[in-house]
Amino acid sequence: MKPESLNPSASHSFLLRLSYPNKIGMLADVIRVLSDNGGDLGAMDIVSVQSGQMIREITVNARSEEHAKQLEEKVAKLPQVTVLAASDRVFLLHQGGKIHVENKIPLTNRDTLSMAYTPGVARVCEAIAARPELVYELTIKSSSVAVVSDGSAVLGLGDIGPAAAMPVMEGKAMLFREFGQVHAYPICLATREPEEIVDTVARIAVGFGGINLEDISAPRCFEIEEKLQERVDIPVFHDDQHGTAIVVLAALINSARLLGRELPAQRYVILGAGAAGVAVAKMLLKVGCRKIVVCDRSGTLHSGRSNLTPIKHWLVAQTNPDGIAGTVRDALKGADVFIGVSSGGRISSEDLRGMSEPRTVFALANPTPEVMPEEAAQYAQIVATGRSDYPNQINNVLAFPGVFQGALSVRASRITEGMKLAAAEAIASCIPPSAVAPEYIIPSVFNRDVTKHVAQAVAQAAEKDGVARA
Amino acid sequence: MKPESLNPSASHSFLLRLSYPNKIGMLADVIRVLSDNGGDLGAMDIVSVQSGQMIREITVNARSEEHAKQLEEKVAKLPQVTVLAASDRVFLLHQGGKIHVENKIPLTNRDTLSMAYTPGVARVCEAIAARPELVYELTIKSSSVAVVSDGSAVLGLGDIGPAAAMPVMEGKAMLFREFGQVHAYPICLATREPEEIVDTVARIAVGFGGINLEDISAPRCFEIEEKLQERVDIPVFHDDQHGTAIVVLAALINSARLLGRELPAQRYVILGAGAAGVAVAKMLLKVGCRKIVVCDRSGTLHSGRSNLTPIKHWLVAQTNPDGIAGTVRDALKGADVFIGVSSGGRISSEDLRGMSEPRTVFALANPTPEVMPEEAAQYAQIVATGRSDYPNQINNVLAFPGVFQGALSVRASRITEGMKLAAAEAIASCIPPSAVAPEYIIPSVFNRDVTKHVAQAVAQAAEKDGVARA
Repeated sequence: MKPESLNPSASHSFLLRLSYPNKIGMLADVIRVLSDNGGDLGAMDIVSVQSGQMIREITVNARSEEHAKQLEEKVAKLPQVTVLAASDRVFLLHQGGKIHVENKIPLTNRDTLSMAYTPGVARVCEAIAARPELVYELTIKSSSVAVVSDGSAVLGLGDIGPAAAMPVMEGKAMLFREFGQVHAYPICLATREPEEIVDTVARIAVGFGGINLEDISAPRCFEIEEKLQERVDIPVFHDDQHGTAIVVLAALINSARLLGRELPAQRYVILGAGAAGVAVAKMLLKVGCRKIVVCDRSGTLHSGRSNLTPIKHWLVAQTNPDGIAGTVRDALKGADVFIGVSSGGRISSEDLRGMSEPRTVFALANPTPEVMPEEAAQYAQIVATGRSDYPNQINNVLAFPGVFQGALSVRASRITEGMKLAAAEAIASCIPPSAVAPEYIIPSVFNRDVTKHVAQAVAQAAEKDGVARA
Repeated sequence: MKPESLNPSASHSFLLRLSYPNKIGMLADVIRVLSDNGGDLGAMDIVSVQSGQMIREITVNARSEEHAKQLEEKVAKLPQVTVLAASDRVFLLHQGGKIHVENKIPLTNRDTLSMAYTPGVARVCEAIAARPELVYELTIKSSSVAVVSDGSAVLGLGDIGPAAAMPVMEGKAMLFREFGQVHAYPICLATREPEEIVDTVARIAVGFGGINLEDISAPRCFEIEEKLQERVDIPVFHDDQHGTAIVVLAALINSARLLGRELPAQRYVILGAGAAGVAVAKMLLKVGCRKIVVCDRSGTLHSGRSNLTPIKHWLVAQTNPDGIAGTVRDALKGADVFIGVSSGGRISSEDLRGMSEPRTVFALANPTPEVMPEEAAQYAQIVATGRSDYPNQINNVLAFPGVFQGALSVRASRITEGMKLAAAEAIASCIPPSAVAPEYIIPSVFNRDVTKHVAQAVAQAAEKDGVARA
């Protein structure tokens, strides 16, 4: 099952450059072939009209690469139509990368050169040497984040290595810029050793105001984050853990409110004991929830399990008070909330039947959820996914831009639990209580108030927790 | 002697915000006081005029911070004039840093989001995982350079540490952007161990197309550059060495041409056996010069010296064929060319008298040259410095933007000697032979042809030397 390909989308769109006689009906034929075969049409620009020959570039959204290829072939078969080029728009967009480093002022004369570089810059260096805290005021450190990955757990693609992870890290940097006004730079690491990763990032941390760890596989990510935070005096934030946990909690706050419940009163089943699953469990524990069962590929985490990693051992001690053994289906019996942070199609709608009503289902695996929303909705009153094409998208971009913006604004030395809780509450509160609804428990990623509210809440929490330095 | 403070300049400029009664003659008084006391006046913007009170902001170039303070105090003593603020323009320019990370497209709707980030980005990642060389085509690697320093030898300031080095590295990134269309990011390292520096940079090299080492002290810089280049498949270029050597050679090519000489026929004295001195000596050896004497603080490098570092040992074996012992003054007897890459005021014009005529003097220490150009000109026919306020400025910005642009354009795996020589010749050739003159042996840093010519020459040389991969 590859549901992302059910609908044509921009993520599989291409530019079709066609040449055909400039006659009435020709374009209609092209459009009909594309539409009849499931293509979703966008812009149809005229490139040129010469000697009765029309050259057009048509934007077509397809369902998959194969579908795009099929559409191209169908058009090519039309009489008198020549396909000059078919260009994948996603790859076009990635040509040469997606971010730039730009200067705040142009260096077009001696005056600016002598102020931004030698000899003027020397006085700025001396000022920082004399008062190290000025590095925040006088360099990009104040607004910069390193987006660090070793490429070991990239999206749903797994261990594809640091070079192949670059497009994701550049994309993350774009999100930081667009949604948080934070200047982030991708740093991909050619090592898998936790000690080496910690050493490397600790040594380059000087010029950054924060470290966003990304797509590093569990359980290494726990050790790396913890040890790195001990080494540096700037926030270290593994987004796959905490970003997810913050947004899940925000959605839970609103769904519980909608159902008239208290968070600790509910029973939770978390499927997936990787970075996100562990972080969600920790966050729930932090807000007083105890009735939590975490499941990995082998079933529920309980005291009877052997060969557990240290973090799973810890989870066994903190969760599953009734010692439920068995599968996720067993765990779901009588549960109120399902939170999937695993992989596509891992549960069926039947698995949900045993839950208590009203059922809350967050099926967050991407691109394919643990259970498709249409199926989950047979039983569940509230359904959320990680996808943009269904209601209630649980998307980290609601959290990390504001978390870092807030942390940077007060020069925080770390991200505390209080700051994460404040971020979750801020996200939840972006929807007025009266507007919260089963299909609206979490704000849109394009709600520009979210970052602002999160940043303010995080900055306040940083001061309250004593980690603010400005 | 602090010659940089002889003339008022933008590197010591400040904004003076004044309030005074809006009466004829008031502004004239202010201007007179500033001018009479050596201030160089720029813009005089009106901020507001309210109830007969004028508020103006005047840009004043001073000679030094103290001079700026004096000027402010003089103005404050004028009757009816109030100094509302005096802001250092160099520090204002550095507020929050000098560079930004910007997105090539805005992420303002779901379509761009799904192409630049998930789910569309996954296909790009998969493409790179399948064909690793695509990382150049589809990420910023193709145009990005890490500007790396440990802060151990920053400008003339010495060992001020990695945080205080940040403004220089940001400035360098600006030069890369402005002059080379290269996207550079500053990476300052909190370690001094060569092994750790090599490990760290090797691990973060994945996402960069090149590494520009900067302001790392000798002799560590030699070891670090060499070992790092063995570890990575992208160019490693210590600009303090090779950038300087390239531009010095370019200037020597034109000065020798002007004097009707061949480079190998001349006798050279290099004062300074640090990064730049060693690199200049190597470059001269590479073009066939043998009559070279290198001097450090203890005098000439010759076989009778003890306790030499490995690189100085190597220099002794390659240079000073006559075994000249003694001071730089002794070495200068009968020499044709003096190249100073040491520190301010290290020689006197008298030291130059013993040189053969015509004398060529490159006094490149910054901001204070080894000998001031006015003094050198008593004896020397050709004088060059590192300063912008004298003719013949030997400035690395003539080399490194084009060197990296050229290397990146062919995805070079390293910078060969051939590429450096090609860069030097390209810089020299930016002045038509008929235009070369004693005060014009090197093009202006604002000659926008330089980078283009250097990049082309470097790319061709890379292909010739078999290090090009595109």
